[in-house]
Amino acid sequence: MGKKQALSHFLISSLLSPALLLLSCRPLYLPPVSAAAAADRRRIVSSSSLKNSKMRPTATLTASSSLNYGFPIPPSSSTSFTPTPSPTNCYFHPCAKKFSSLRFKPNKRNITRSAVSIEKEIPETERPITFLRESEGADVRARFEKMIRDAQDSVCAAIEAADKGGKFKEDVWSRPGGGGGISRVLQDGAVWEKAGVNVSVVYGVMPPEAYRAAKAAPADQKPGPVLHPKNPFAPTLHFNYRYFETDAPQDVPGAPRQWWFGGGTDLTPAYIFDEDVKHFHSTQKKACDKFDPTFYPRFKKWCDDYFYIKHRGERRGLGGIFFDDLNDYDQEMLLSFATECANSVVPAYIPIIEKRKDTPFTDHHKAWQQLRRGRYVEFNLVYDRGTTFGLKTGGRIESILVSLPLSARWEYDHKPEVGSEEWKLLDACINPKEWI
Amino acid sequence: MGKKQALSHFLISSLLSPALLLLSCRPLYLPPVSAAAAADRRRIVSSSSLKNSKMRPTATLTASSSLNYGFPIPPSSSTSFTPTPSPTNCYFHPCAKKFSSLRFKPNKRNITRSAVSIEKEIPETERPITFLRESEGADVRARFEKMIRDAQDSVCAAIEAADKGGKFKEDVWSRPGGGGGISRVLQDGAVWEKAGVNVSVVYGVMPPEAYRAAKAAPADQKPGPVLHPKNPFAPTLHFNYRYFETDAPQDVPGAPRQWWFGGGTDLTPAYIFDEDVKHFHSTQKKACDKFDPTFYPRFKKWCDDYFYIKHRGERRGLGGIFFDDLNDYDQEMLLSFATECANSVVPAYIPIIEKRKDTPFTDHHKAWQQLRRGRYVEFNLVYDRGTTFGLKTGGRIESILVSLPLSARWEYDHKPEVGSEEWKLLDACINPKEWI
Repeated sequence: MGKKQALSHFLISSLLSPALLLLSCRPLYLPPVSAAAAADRRRIVSSSSLKNSKMRPTATLTASSSLNYGFPIPPSSSTSFTPTPSPTNCYFHPCAKKFSSLRFKPNKRNITRSAVSIEKEIPETERPITFLRESEGADVRARFEKMIRDAQDSVCAAIEAADKGGKFKEDVWSRPGGGGGISRVLQDGAVWEKAGVNVSVVYGVMPPEAYRAAKAAPADQKPGPVLHPKNPFAPTLHFNYRYFETDAPQDVPGAPRQWWFGGGTDLTPAYIFDEDVKHFHSTQKKACDKFDPTFYPRFKKWCDDYFYIKHRGERRGLGGIFFDDLNDYDQEMLLSFATECANSVVPAYIPIIEKRKDTPFTDHHKAWQQLRRGRYVEFNLVYDRGTTFGLKTGGRIESILVSLPLSARWEYDHKPEVGSEEWKLLDACINPKEWI
Repeated sequence: MGKKQALSHFLISSLLSPALLLLSCRPLYLPPVSAAAAADRRRIVSSSSLKNSKMRPTATLTASSSLNYGFPIPPSSSTSFTPTPSPTNCYFHPCAKKFSSLRFKPNKRNITRSAVSIEKEIPETERPITFLRESEGADVRARFEKMIRDAQDSVCAAIEAADKGGKFKEDVWSRPGGGGGISRVLQDGAVWEKAGVNVSVVYGVMPPEAYRAAKAAPADQKPGPVLHPKNPFAPTLHFNYRYFETDAPQDVPGAPRQWWFGGGTDLTPAYIFDEDVKHFHSTQKKACDKFDPTFYPRFKKWCDDYFYIKHRGERRGLGGIFFDDLNDYDQEMLLSFATECANSVVPAYIPIIEKRKDTPFTDHHKAWQQLRRGRYVEFNLVYDRGTTFGLKTGGRIESILVSLPLSARWEYDHKPEVGSEEWKLLDACINPKEWI
């Protein structure tokens, strides 16, 4: 793999709660340039709403969950992918220089990736000031990292305060070529069965052919960690905000960076309290409306479409907002929007938890919550592209599967009684409603 | 799809306990014939050890789990597959005449299947004498159906007797074009949390191009039902025996039927009792040795290789036997072998249950069992081709997912203490042992 053909990318994100977030974030096609190639690239990347036609060496920055891919092209139906067998928990190594063993052999409709170099992450004893390889405080990437790490701190603090018992266990890790992450998991607390709030910075390199061939495949797929409460009347929450940036080949100085934002926050209760769901959606709408009145309706529908368990004909929960590939707005505006969304997690969620965490419940309520957790597992293991890609390619298993609930249940042919509270939840998952 | 190009196939099977059984059962390539094509076909199907070169209209008969595919070609890495959206639980309709909407458009490396007709099964109030469309008592298919239905009866009777409380709930169903099944599920019994023992007869039709193009893909994929006991010292059992038969195009009278057998029985304990595992494997070996001394070592290894959870680097359990594509022996001999295996389920398993079902246990033991059940879920949802294919294509969800345990658990970064009983089980799942 010639260096000049390599594209590095770079991502950071932070998430709460399980399940994949990225549906349609696409890799970029940034070949060594000719005018025709540049024009072709513009056409090819148009689905990612990319407007720049020149390229130069850059990197991609995204805030992501604890799952980190150096190489964010998952296998799709038109590709074959043969990773190096990885019986132990490993990460892709994110550094370009180290990837001599990474080979992509794309042809027009089938990409054969003959080998993927997989390296273990390195545990760190303390949090670095930044996981960025190179950064300036004014860079969007640096500001996004700071924002997402601040969000991690504030969300974890709010959860520990509400839990009044459980403490997050923190794992800090890095990779030799740059990047790293902070995974925090609170397990078996007073309020939450399992809560994960992670931040990561991921670097990766791939040849432009792979970007081109994989343009229809999602890019920086990650499942999110979890906030699964114990009380069946207290809902599960998931969020993930990320920033993605690519570099063009190093011998094309002056080419602009490609970048985009993605993210979302969604709520998964086992029982519906109208006021809770309205409060949650209103908070999302309020954050959206500060930037664009079209955001909430558009991202609300995107969320309903995304968290769809096709084989059940149900959504995983009651939605929220979800967006991806966002770059057709001012970059500063989108950074502010992502910041607003991340900062809305606590006010959207914690008041609901405070209200429901001590509600008395029976075994019947708990069993229904566990059945809905089973749906969560189904979504994450069957549809979550981050999870399925991570499992296939040797990502760090504990980080990938932290999104699964502590416990889940499957009953044969369970059907809630028509008109019951369980039936109402199921109905709202089958037929998404407008909550506000 | 011209009728003359259609191949019908036909399968029946019976299973206990979860997870996919078929690893490498391959569809046949049976084109409208020319001498060259026949020779080519022989080469192509050699991986299925098929020896016949002529073809005529037939059907395929397999005994399978409760999951039934009329069209047993799952998507593989080199195919794309776009089923009709199916928000409700549906079956493929298995009748050739009804499949005008089924279209396969294969090219050499990519098959596009533009639509798949999906129809609901029809619930029946009583069990028919046979699910076969046409049969003679002396046919292998008819004798296999009788054998597998007898096995269902005897296994269910043994389970109810050992459970001393739980009773199987039975669902009988048929399909308009022929075929059907009997699903039996015992849930929340005294001994078993969830037990499913199902029989089905499946008919399907597909054009020869699809067989050819999909030859590397598994054919009659099905997850098996479950026998998940409550006591953490009592193991889960899974078995599935099936017979598969194909017809050549109807305008080529006199062509021989293609057929093969597949199956296996495997044990998944949470704790190892050497004597139990030895008893289980000895029973499998005894059944195998009656027919061929190479069977047990070969099928034991096949089983270890098959039930591999790649992302964990672990097997699901402690194995047993697994085979597929078996047709390079005398057909009568293989029918006797499958019968012997099916009849060995009760003596291999029930004595272990009787010994362990009342063993005192703690929350610690139960939590470990639940973690291992989590692995069962991971295998079935991530690797079980029957499950993943069924979920993607609209199979009957409750039948597909009956293999999932009643409950399962995921703890972040759980590691059993080295040398503990939990560690010993994990070690044996990572490093398969010779038990006898």
